[in-house]
Parts: sequence; structure tokens; C-alpha cells
Amino acid sequence: MTTVISLEPLTAAAFAPFGVVIEAIGDPSFMINNGMCGRYHDLARPEVTGAEGAVSISVARSDAIKLPLSLTMMERHPLGSQAFVPMNGDRLIVTVADDDDGKPGHPRAFVSAPGQGIQYSMNIWHGVLAPLSGPSDFLIVDRAGAGDNLVEHHFETPFIVKGAT
Amino acid sequence: MTTVISLEPLTAAAFAPFGVVIEAIGDPSFMINNGMCGRYHDLARPEVTGAEGAVSISVARSDAIKLPLSLTMMERHPLGSQAFVPMNGDRLIVTVADDDDGKPGHPRAFVSAPGQGIQYSMNIWHGVLAPLSGPSDFLIVDRAGAGDNLVEHHFETPFIVKGAT
Repeated sequence: MTTVISLEPLTAAAFAPFGVVIEAIGDPSFMINNGMCGRYHDLARPEVTGAEGAVSISVARSDAIKLPLSLTMMERHPLGSQAFVPMNGDRLIVTVADDDDGKPGHPRAFVSAPGQGIQYSMNIWHGVLAPLSGPSDFLIVDRAGAGDNLVEHHFETPFIVKGAT
Repeated sequence: MTTVISLEPLTAAAFAPFGVVIEAIGDPSFMINNGMCGRYHDLARPEVTGAEGAVSISVARSDAIKLPLSLTMMERHPLGSQAFVPMNGDRLIVTVADDDDGKPGHPRAFVSAPGQGIQYSMNIWHGVLAPLSGPSDFLIVDRAGAGDNLVEHHFETPFIVKGAT
């Protein structure tokens, strides 16, 4: 039987068990450039472990997904965190799950607002990059280097993600 | 006497002495997500040195600059690289200079295209964040932690940056 997952708004508090929301919200940490620029400082620390691993910056250009979204697979990265930040203010569907004895538990699905990015913590189950419009460019900050950094889990019955965006 | 610096288009080749242009250009390194997404992989490696330093992700919200721009100061970071990537496709003025015996040599000024970000290599002289529209959000990937990571040089006579954008 197919299970429907409803979209939740992406907030730092709701997303905290899975990682960090990267955004300029509230007052800046401090001002720079003669007061011309507010810096929201040190929002996320990329995590990298394992021999020969390094923090690396990439770009992804992704087609848009359509809702309802069929969530067939989730993955996790045992050797590092992974940050995705839209380069064009695009919104995305962020699916994550707690671990349940080596496989994803019941997934949750967030919808981001323009100006928000996320960092999945190391080893957190998540779905693939899912922008609501596209083709759309995303900055990625994650781990490069040797080592087995990908675990996938395919669901026998996909979850269906839907809700208001 | 004031010296005028003309804007150059930002290209990977022209910017190479100073750092990396972060952009999706040409063919992707490989496809992911069942062919839905092209990844331009490992474009830049954040550099961090010194005790207690770590790679960190921040956001900056900056007002726009106006051209002609008066370049009064340049800075460099001896302990780490610094990446700036617009989160809204905004364009920016990127000023850099070779080192000339401990101070900036003759500056160069680049204008970015939508979808481009940059990473200044460690210790490269550069001007402050200068978007052409704003307020505008930028992702920053640079070094957090203890240590003296800022050297500033103030010009006796500012340079004037101008040209077609």
C-alpha cells in the first residue's frame, strides 16, 4: 500500500535532526564592508572523514521534478556531509529520514523557500536533488576523494510526496 | 593621479592566476539522478591552514555597488581560500591583484555573468564583495576558527573601476 507524505515548510528547527538550513534569516552575525554587507557567519561546517577525503565545491544542473513525487530511493554518505544551495533562488523538495536499523525510517518531506539551502549531516538518509523549477543550478559542498561514500536503499513500495508548495 | 581599471569578462582562463570560477559550463563531469542532473564535479577545493581552522559555510547579504567603483582597499587571507557564489544569479565585480612585495600590484577587475561564482585562492589580494544588484545573498565558503586571517592594504589614491557590464 502506498503511503503519502505531506510537505512541511523547511525551518531550521524542524530540519535540525537531519542537518542545517543555510539562509540569511534574522539579524546578521556582524556587518562587514563598511556596513554594506551583513554576514550570517559559520552556519554550517562541512564534515569530511576517511583517508584521502577533502571538502570540495561542485555545481549541479538539475531538471525539475513534478509533484506528486514518487520517492523510490534514499541514500546516505558515510564519509561526509552534503550541502545543496540553489544558485537562482529556486525552491526544492528535501526528503530525509531517520535511520531504522540500517535502512531509512518513515521519510519526511520539506519544501524550501526562495533563498534557502540545506546541508545534510554525514550519514543522514535523504532523497536526490529535487528542484521545483528547472533546469536549475545548485552549489554543492561535499566530500571528494577515494572511499566508499554512498549507501542506497530502494523501497519496495515508493512513498508519494505531495502537498501545497 | 587616479588610475582607471577597465572591466574584463570573468572567464576561467583569465581568472586562473587568482582562483577558480565556479559555474556549470560545457559538458557535465557526469550525470546523476537517473540522467536528470548533470554534476560539474570538484570545481574548487577550499584551502584551510593554521591551527583550529575549519571549512565553514556562511551567507552574506550585501547592498549593491555602483559603477564607477572606487577601489580604496584590498585584502588577503593568509590562512584560507574564500568562495563567493550568488544565491540569486546576481552579477558581481571581482577585483584582484598579484602581490607586489607585500602589497597589491596593479589591480584587475572582472565582471561576472549570471550563474558564476568565484573562489579566491589563499592569500590572493582582492576587493570586497561587490554585487551589481541588491540587496543580494551570497554563499561564502571560507575558513572559520582562531588565527589572524586578514591583511588589509589601503591605497593612497583609490583606483577607479569602470566599463561596460
